[in-house]
Amino acid sequence: MKIYGDLKSGNCYKLKLLCHLLQLEHEWVHVDILREETRTPGFLILNPNAKVPLLELNDGRTLSESNAILNYLASGSALLPQDNFTLAKVLQWQFFEQYSHEPYIAVARFIACYLGLPEERRAEYHAKQPGGHRALQVMEQQLQQTEYLVGDQLSIADLSLYAYTHVAPEGGFELTNYPAIRAWLSRVEATPGYCAMPCES
Amino acid sequence: MKIYGDLKSGNCYKLKLLCHLLQLEHEWVHVDILREETRTPGFLILNPNAKVPLLELNDGRTLSESNAILNYLASGSALLPQDNFTLAKVLQWQFFEQYSHEPYIAVARFIACYLGLPEERRAEYHAKQPGGHRALQVMEQQLQQTEYLVGDQLSIADLSLYAYTHVAPEGGFELTNYPAIRAWLSRVEATPGYCAMPCES
Repeated sequence: MKIYGDLKSGNCYKLKLLCHLLQLEHEWVHVDILREETRTPGFLILNPNAKVPLLELNDGRTLSESNAILNYLASGSALLPQDNFTLAKVLQWQFFEQYSHEPYIAVARFIACYLGLPEERRAEYHAKQPGGHRALQVMEQQLQQTEYLVGDQLSIADLSLYAYTHVAPEGGFELTNYPAIRAWLSRVEATPGYCAMPCES
Repeated sequence: MKIYGDLKSGNCYKLKLLCHLLQLEHEWVHVDILREETRTPGFLILNPNAKVPLLELNDGRTLSESNAILNYLASGSALLPQDNFTLAKVLQWQFFEQYSHEPYIAVARFIACYLGLPEERRAEYHAKQPGGHRALQVMEQQLQQTEYLVGDQLSIADLSLYAYTHVAPEGGFELTNYPAIRAWLSRVEATPGYCAMPCES
């Protein structure tokens, strides 16, 4: 299988981390976001929504959306619970990530880190801060009660949220006031097979 | 089980529609979004992320995020495919909905319909239009190829996207140029058990 991605993106790194943890063989195809390589005619055939990551199976079938790909690749592994309700809790955290976390924390980080906080996006960067902290507070509250986001077992919910949380300070979100999040980050990083996010792909 | 929701919200209506289609008995607890009833101390205990819909099981366990709840409640029914890859395609469309569709179409509709398009949010309303049309184009392209979003069977992916697409004109997104979407809306509406979204809850 091939994974099309750009490791500057936490959404893509989620899959790299999963593949490391589960030792899944794959070919990584670099698609440069800053060069708008997700908008070329060739890539739009693969994903009309013009986004990475994208999974391409050996038979040519494709799957987009980082969290959908995580669910597919983790199926049958210890990272995906069997029980219906626990599985739904994993999804709950993944939808939370895409709606209430990523649009604030990942976007602020992108503006600061990769665009160099240009004047014309400074207001947007600052507007992202309260929403990002609200998301971190929701995570902190959960992680004060359980070791991982869904109970006491690492799941793909943790990988989904780890990706942009551990680099949140790059978007201006200091983690000083979130001790349970910091302990959880260390727990994820101590998992056998863990791989760090590269500074540059 | 109880569902806390506000039928002004397409995210809540998704669950009402699913319960009708599958004839699931439930108690609907109205939580008024415009009165900020999702931010009361009592509701924040149920959902620290301050959002509806919320599912509460008879044993007190709770689940948030509309699409996670759809997955949980549809489990074992014909609306949720069994095959791993097909299931992942359903998730792909649901994550697409929350990231690339809802933040444009639902938010524009909310500003226009429920806030009355106030002067101070007019720029935001207009800024939502291109993103909403990009999402509709991605759907149109898929629905030109298949009867439903995932193959030729109605699934919860369709319910997720139907909720805000059928009221997209209320957010300024005319569907005239999307014939495949319009045919699909009619197909969903012809499903036995279908219930329309109320104008007011």
